[in-house]
Amino acid sequence: MSLPAEFALIARHFRRLAGPGALDLQDDAALLAPPAGRELVLAADAMVAGVHFLPDDPPETIGRKLLRVNLSDLAAMGADALGYLMTVALPQGTPDAWLEGFVAGLAEDQALFGLSVLGGDTVSIPGPVTLSLTILGAVEPGTALRRVGARPGDELWVSGTIGDGALGLRALRGGFPDPSGFLARRYRLPEPRLALGAALRGIARACMDVSDGLLQDAGHLARAAGAAVEIEAARVPLSAPGNPLALCVTGGDDYELLFAAAPEDAPRVEAASRAAGTAVTRIGRFTPGPAAVTLRDETGRPMDLPREGWSHF
Amino acid sequence: MSLPAEFALIARHFRRLAGPGALDLQDDAALLAPPAGRELVLAADAMVAGVHFLPDDPPETIGRKLLRVNLSDLAAMGADALGYLMTVALPQGTPDAWLEGFVAGLAEDQALFGLSVLGGDTVSIPGPVTLSLTILGAVEPGTALRRVGARPGDELWVSGTIGDGALGLRALRGGFPDPSGFLARRYRLPEPRLALGAALRGIARACMDVSDGLLQDAGHLARAAGAAVEIEAARVPLSAPGNPLALCVTGGDDYELLFAAAPEDAPRVEAASRAAGTAVTRIGRFTPGPAAVTLRDETGRPMDLPREGWSHF
Repeated sequence: MSLPAEFALIARHFRRLAGPGALDLQDDAALLAPPAGRELVLAADAMVAGVHFLPDDPPETIGRKLLRVNLSDLAAMGADALGYLMTVALPQGTPDAWLEGFVAGLAEDQALFGLSVLGGDTVSIPGPVTLSLTILGAVEPGTALRRVGARPGDELWVSGTIGDGALGLRALRGGFPDPSGFLARRYRLPEPRLALGAALRGIARACMDVSDGLLQDAGHLARAAGAAVEIEAARVPLSAPGNPLALCVTGGDDYELLFAAAPEDAPRVEAASRAAGTAVTRIGRFTPGPAAVTLRDETGRPMDLPREGWSHF
Repeated sequence: MSLPAEFALIARHFRRLAGPGALDLQDDAALLAPPAGRELVLAADAMVAGVHFLPDDPPETIGRKLLRVNLSDLAAMGADALGYLMTVALPQGTPDAWLEGFVAGLAEDQALFGLSVLGGDTVSIPGPVTLSLTILGAVEPGTALRRVGARPGDELWVSGTIGDGALGLRALRGGFPDPSGFLARRYRLPEPRLALGAALRGIARACMDVSDGLLQDAGHLARAAGAAVEIEAARVPLSAPGNPLALCVTGGDDYELLFAAAPEDAPRVEAASRAAGTAVTRIGRFTPGPAAVTLRDETGRPMDLPREGWSHF
């Protein structure tokens, strides 16, 4: 008795990604014993070809990007990863080679980040490749980093460098030089800052990941704090001095951690950074006043920028 | 400081669905304390307009159908629902009224089934409305119903009636009479058999839900058991005697439970059915032999059917 086509496809491609609780992807659901005495951390993100990735991106990087974007949400909460579920909507006639690359990339990242697929669904779509991923993580109760919690006087920090993802997208479209391919790699394979997020538990007062642009995301922290955020443009870490600031701070696709810490905790932040092997930079501070984000140039003058970040609607 | 459009949309429409662990959908992830001493049960399903539902289906029923399809996976495992995450990919310019109806339907089902949204994502798509939902449930360790476990000699049972979903789709396309709208309702709003699934723990030896057609799904149980399945056509429960059998047993979209039980447990199955308020019918049996599904007419002759069920590829 042969398998129907959809199940043969799942068996051929996806079963190699299945972890112990996934029941070989042959049951209606997966079973997972939650780690004792921990809280679950759950997030879901979707990606659409032509919107969140380029239709001709290598299939090896597409699934990895979606997984890493979700892992970045766990990093922002200071959580460890447990597993994930993924739904894949594919146009009829998607080549087997595309699926092979897509799954091979995921297998590589599963090994790198120590998690596996728990379940999912594969459907056809009369439209672009559309992916959705739900990530499960865990954290000791009460220790998850939250967006709320920053206070006036706190300093604002960011990990890594800002703007590379947006520049990478522009480079892939031929609008920015990228001779080494560094920027394209940053666009296609963001680096979830899991070790840094975990190290910041008990230190950062508020934390999130930068996905929609530094300024827009700083606005979320400002609103959650009911405070103003001042950012010094000259301190925003760029991967090269010539990178255009306006695009870098509004472009999105960074997946760096943006967090608040009390000034007296700066040495602890720096120790966490060293322990995690991830650079951090102090770029501004929270001040009393209504929620707002101000970017200041080296003379202290507020800078005017065309748009605040990426929104789908 | 005003919210960017995407976040305003989430605040306006989706926040009313958020449960306690969802942190008002304002953090990077949700937090959930797993119920002590229980296993998690996890499943994900996707639905695409024009494939899994009709683009002009009332928005009130579209989210409910996706939620119920996922709840049906929990029912098939005998699990209770805890919450869900959902990603929604919408074409630009989706009317606010559509979203209002979509969310109102979900709110109604959240109240009915006692769960709430934990998180998700809203993105734009240059294609049809595409939805993905991950459901979380829980079950006492070791008691989840599985697809594997049936043995030769076991009887095959099914809940409710078979074929109404497929006939409802045909009716909505003008190809089948449905004066009362009963079949259309069955297509748009499947009934997840959660009470029956829970009542069958410790009784059913194998269980799944019928989503891709009775015969195809019986094939999954046959393969998992390494046994043959014989189904008596005359016993397949139809909602009206004139319903076309071939379509009913291959059409899919039933979301009824299909399960195996030892013949001596028939009284326990019937007691579970009464306790859950869900009719069940014995439609066949497992026999020794290679995995295969045979549908027999009243004279015992094997019936030949054009196709076995629905597959996306």
